[in-house]
Amino acid sequence: VLPGSYRAAGLVDDAAFVRAMLEAEVAWARVLGTSVSLGSWVPVLDPSEVEAAGNPVLPLVSALRARVSGPVHTGLTSQDVLDTALMLLARGVLTRVSGDLERVAAALARLADEHRASVMAGRTLTQFAVPITFGLKAARWLAGVLDSLGELEVVSRNLPVQCGGAAGTLARVESDPLAAASAFAGFLGLVWPGMPWHTYRAPVTRLGDALVRACDALGVMAADLLTLGRPEIDEVREGAVAGRGGSSTMPHKRNPVLSVLVNSAALQAPQLGAQLHLCAARAVDERPDGAWHAEWPSLRSLLEIAVVVASQAAELVEGLEVHADVMARRASEAAGELLAERGGGTDPASHLGVAESFVDEVLKRWEMRCPTTKA
Amino acid sequence: VLPGSYRAAGLVDDAAFVRAMLEAEVAWARVLGTSVSLGSWVPVLDPSEVEAAGNPVLPLVSALRARVSGPVHTGLTSQDVLDTALMLLARGVLTRVSGDLERVAAALARLADEHRASVMAGRTLTQFAVPITFGLKAARWLAGVLDSLGELEVVSRNLPVQCGGAAGTLARVESDPLAAASAFAGFLGLVWPGMPWHTYRAPVTRLGDALVRACDALGVMAADLLTLGRPEIDEVREGAVAGRGGSSTMPHKRNPVLSVLVNSAALQAPQLGAQLHLCAARAVDERPDGAWHAEWPSLRSLLEIAVVVASQAAELVEGLEVHADVMARRASEAAGELLAERGGGTDPASHLGVAESFVDEVLKRWEMRCPTTKA
Amino acid sequence: VLPGSYRAAGLVDDAAFVRAMLEAEVAWARVLGTSVSLGSWVPVLDPSEVEAAGNPVLPLVSALRARVSGPVHTGLTSQDVLDTALMLLARGVLTRVSGDLERVAAALARLADEHRASVMAGRTLTQFAVPITFGLKAARWLAGVLDSLGELEVVSRNLPVQCGGAAGTLARVESDPLAAASAFAGFLGLVWPGMPWHTYRAPVTRLGDALVRACDALGVMAADLLTLGRPEIDEVREGAVAGRGGSSTMPHKRNPVLSVLVNSAALQAPQLGAQLHLCAARAVDERPDGAWHAEWPSLRSLLEIAVVVASQAAELVEGLEVHADVMARRASEAAGELLAERGGGTDPASHLGVAESFVDEVLKRWEMRCPTTKA
Amino acid sequence: VLPGSYRAAGLVDDAAFVRAMLEAEVAWARVLGTSVSLGSWVPVLDPSEVEAAGNPVLPLVSALRARVSGPVHTGLTSQDVLDTALMLLARGVLTRVSGDLERVAAALARLADEHRASVMAGRTLTQFAVPITFGLKAARWLAGVLDSLGELEVVSRNLPVQCGGAAGTLARVESDPLAAASAFAGFLGLVWPGMPWHTYRAPVTRLGDALVRACDALGVMAADLLTLGRPEIDEVREGAVAGRGGSSTMPHKRNPVLSVLVNSAALQAPQLGAQLHLCAARAVDERPDGAWHAEWPSLRSLLEIAVVVASQAAELVEGLEVHADVMARRASEAAGELLAERGGGTDPASHLGVAESFVDEVLKRWEMRCPTTKA
Repeated sequence: VLPGSYRAAGLVDDAAFVRAMLEAEVAWARVLGTSVSLGSWVPVLDPSEVEAAGNPVLPLVSALRARVSGPVHTGLTSQDVLDTALMLLARGVLTRVSGDLERVAAALARLADEHRASVMAGRTLTQFAVPITFGLKAARWLAGVLDSLGELEVVSRNLPVQCGGAAGTLARVESDPLAAASAFAGFLGLVWPGMPWHTYRAPVTRLGDALVRACDALGVMAADLLTLGRPEIDEVREGAVAGRGGSSTMPHKRNPVLSVLVNSAALQAPQLGAQLHLCAARAVDERPDGAWHAEWPSLRSLLEIAVVVASQAAELVEGLEVHADVMARRASEAAGELLAERGGGTDPASHLGVAESFVDEVLKRWEMRCPTTKA
Repeated sequence: VLPGSYRAAGLVDDAAFVRAMLEAEVAWARVLGTSVSLGSWVPVLDPSEVEAAGNPVLPLVSALRARVSGPVHTGLTSQDVLDTALMLLARGVLTRVSGDLERVAAALARLADEHRASVMAGRTLTQFAVPITFGLKAARWLAGVLDSLGELEVVSRNLPVQCGGAAGTLARVESDPLAAASAFAGFLGLVWPGMPWHTYRAPVTRLGDALVRACDALGVMAADLLTLGRPEIDEVREGAVAGRGGSSTMPHKRNPVLSVLVNSAALQAPQLGAQLHLCAARAVDERPDGAWHAEWPSLRSLLEIAVVVASQAAELVEGLEVHADVMARRASEAAGELLAERGGGTDPASHLGVAESFVDEVLKRWEMRCPTTKA
Repeated sequence: VLPGSYRAAGLVDDAAFVRAMLEAEVAWARVLGTSVSLGSWVPVLDPSEVEAAGNPVLPLVSALRARVSGPVHTGLTSQDVLDTALMLLARGVLTRVSGDLERVAAALARLADEHRASVMAGRTLTQFAVPITFGLKAARWLAGVLDSLGELEVVSRNLPVQCGGAAGTLARVESDPLAAASAFAGFLGLVWPGMPWHTYRAPVTRLGDALVRACDALGVMAADLLTLGRPEIDEVREGAVAGRGGSSTMPHKRNPVLSVLVNSAALQAPQLGAQLHLCAARAVDERPDGAWHAEWPSLRSLLEIAVVVASQAAELVEGLEVHADVMARRASEAAGELLAERGGGTDPASHLGVAESFVDEVLKRWEMRCPTTKA
Repeated sequence: VLPGSYRAAGLVDDAAFVRAMLEAEVAWARVLGTSVSLGSWVPVLDPSEVEAAGNPVLPLVSALRARVSGPVHTGLTSQDVLDTALMLLARGVLTRVSGDLERVAAALARLADEHRASVMAGRTLTQFAVPITFGLKAARWLAGVLDSLGELEVVSRNLPVQCGGAAGTLARVESDPLAAASAFAGFLGLVWPGMPWHTYRAPVTRLGDALVRACDALGVMAADLLTLGRPEIDEVREGAVAGRGGSSTMPHKRNPVLSVLVNSAALQAPQLGAQLHLCAARAVDERPDGAWHAEWPSLRSLLEIAVVVASQAAELVEGLEVHADVMARRASEAAGELLAERGGGTDPASHLGVAESFVDEVLKRWEMRCPTTKA
């Protein structure tokens, strides 16, 4: 019942998690020479067995063994399966998030280009400063999104398989453990990083940090839109969608729901990222005594939030109404203040500095990344 | 599939949340003079309508209006319903948590009393310090639990109804709004705090802080047990339960699963508490633009964690094996170090200071709270 | 060079910390029957000795022993001295913060009373909702401040002395350890809580939570003032003070500096509070292996922030310019929207519900606390 | 008086901060054609002027103008100077941290190589698992440090100058603003990123995340060392240094002070990183209303912590005593459990899997980075 969580349906929920763990087990079975064909079978795990084992892998393996003849799981530890499954979930999420960030970027690029000459009041510490353009504002948001896209791509390309066995030595893998680990990665389309990372959690924190940074970039945009969309300012408005933004009591209301939800997500992401780092700092021994378990809910929440927020942001930016006339009128009325820096004047458009060069700079970055969007 | 989450089944999940919102609506309908009898009916909410409204209340009210003749919801805003529902969930959680903390306390009191003379090595900064008793250790954990119990009781008694209407003025409540708010609270067994708290979130942060503090108290105990239960130390062990603590690969393993999970919860709670404070600091205008929405998942996660961890801790402490003989042997072997402070000696029991007085002090607190447990 | 930190000068800096540790040692020396008169002497501690000891107490005691004949420190552990010193710093801070919150409360009470009929637009999710009064808004801020005052007072009355010796048994205190601990507390004006709290950190987290909650209450007010003071809204303005709020480049600027700084503090406090809880959850053994050390900078930062923010908030509220005419004009112009809930109308003042009762409710709370401010 | 902070002396304190701001102003003056020679002059800033301006730049510029004939600061905004100064501080910190991480890496590489055959018990969830070598353990810590080194180098190479003027348009820079910005960067040895980043804070969060990740890597090592150095385990010990690790009360104590302090730092870093992200998500308008101010203390604390912890970690690892004999004896005694996975046995060295290959893998990474350390 949380607004927007349906947008992540099937990507990180319990069923997806179990499927991903199964996918990992099947790939490893293949490494072991066991052919497994499960169809759409997914085991139902007994929650008290999950708790008794400390994680869902042991009951999952029991259920799997009951269906499959031939060795399965042998040589792995539960963390191998669970961490790998989380990386598989992350892959699906990153694909989705990147796709939606591309939509955000494309829409922002269009706005930046279209409004490169739309003068508006620049505001610092909430007060009028000097003039800017809405194109510059859109370009700045775009810069953040582009950087996020690049960073998520790097993370995506490096999602690692986990493969170490009981204490990270692959001691129970009988023939050529390193080749087995490579094959495991290959079957799953993940990367074998050369050694296990049971207690070295940078693969998780790097993923987390990149997602938080994406939320930061979208959050600051949403916060700006919320300000600019206040009725007293009215320089932008969320696109009208039938049924959206209504109130349970006030018939006239058209709440900026998407901006509110994006803002809300950005307020949550930093804590989730911090949680992952804390777990990394406590990943003791060969496999830790609680810090690993504390990662799962935070990482899954962060993955979910990222999917939802990117999708909402795409819809938000694509539907945004920009009131360039209001911007122009306000800038003109406030010209006295906006031009005080250079000693006065009446035409805000005459004091824009290199705003347009900055717009071009960001659009060039976008175009180089995605030339087909070039006009 | 998260280990232990079944222990909170039905308390904070989506279904429980919807039921709690319905309970709030029904109570308010009663205030409005509408008699509502829904039986076990629970509406299915369309996720895209939930998002369009920004929260689940509007679709819930629509569904409710389709079933009920007579006014419902009139005069309330969605936040009135949702905040009140969260307080109803909190009430159920607090009852459960307090019950389990009582079990923890009773078991710790027994251990403190039983082991008031069980000498063991005191350890500071990981190294041997001076002797203590296991009874003192248990008493210290108990002190934390007792304080938590007291604090949760205060929070419990003050869970407030939310009732303010669109902007906190109850402007659409036609006859005697203050009496209506009081009646609303009365029907639900909550407190009417005299005015709405849409943007004043101390009721939420106080609840959150108390739950985090309970997790702190249990977490430090679990962390200690994990250390004392290391095979090289072996002064305690989690009780054996068939099927618990096994490994997916190592047949001999008996992992301290409950301690691990309690420790894991305690690593997560502080971030969730911080999230609630951040939302409180951003609860702007008459109802905020994202900070309120960011509260829900954190509060629900914290409520769930608290239920699970208290229940696990109760089982952990009730089943704990204490190896007083190992403690005694180690203390004796390390007597040279443990007694260095006072210049040497061979009998650690001779240098216990007022350890037993502290045990008595805590047991007295516990007994005054719960005289029936007195021997 | 951080803006405003001068307001906390002498309360929590290194010199104050050392003085507080000395004060604790002197009190304990008195318990031991040693009369110590140090005048204004403060030792200079060698930083590498501080690090070698892991804390400043050992070098401090060495310096003290070189000046004092008769026993000092005997029976205490360094944590006894350092924790007690932090509580002494906290006491000074709480006195100052409470004094400034009283000023905030008095100013808000005056505003609430004076503007009980100043109609303004209510805003929810950034959009116009129904009318409120500025008096109601001030009363809501006041409610938060009053609750904080009450909570800080409780914390203040319960600041505990730390007294446990090497492992919390007072084993090296020769005659009547419990009486010694009581006397120690008595000499310092702190509370002896009946036993040490080396690893039970609720005294620290409760202090922290209360300070964070005070920051929340002031932060939400500052965030509101920043919105209401935007030039397009212009319903309030920070009082003009010569030299304040200027820009390094724009001569016309009058930035709402105090609101910005209060807002900034409120964004920082939640993380600091979370840090204290995390340390509490990791306070292992008889004295912990890092979690205690991690408390000091966070607690000192939080203490400093609280002093600064309360002082800034007092100045902010006392000097606030309220533009009731702008509020009235806007409410009137937006009457169509503000009265849509009840089907239209032109007079926002006719749809204020029980706003004034809520103002009275909060003012009554304030008056009962502080009857002399009654008109 | 915080243990170890002397290790960061002169790098991030107020004096260093003011010097860095001066350095930025001087470089910009040079861009403006003003030759400034200040010698060792550093202005004393009036704290109340700093607060009145909201930041230290305005008073700094006033002081500078009083000493310099010719234009200074013209065209910049205070954020340009302050952000640039923070990047200059970061540069000094990164140089220092990287140097110390190199020392940590070299020492770990030596340990990994030397102990590639030192068998010890592997531990998972605190219990004995299968055998590993201490060389593998060291190699895993090394992997984290190597990754951090690489990441910090990337961050280092990209530290950006801030240059945007009042609202990020460089409107007051008279001749060729883009060239001026480039020159500014060039004079300071920073990067001109093509546009200002007043409200796009990824340069700050990326720096922060990399530092937190370094703390994670060192923290998990310290946490492991604390466990392995417990007297009951005794497989490692911090090197003896005269005067270090003593107790204020127990003469025999040799506390693992450096491990404790590194552990302590790692518990703090995640919250500081989260703070930076939160500020990034709230960097609204053309320059924000509090979120920027909230960055400074967190970033400076994180910079300081990173310097201190890297330096302490270097000393810790370089001086580490490894008790390979104790490891061997324990592994042998626990052989029954350690070899249970493969059905028993008596020689733990026979069940090490590819532990040595993993050691070689990490050593190869280290050697490729730094071939001169190759034996």
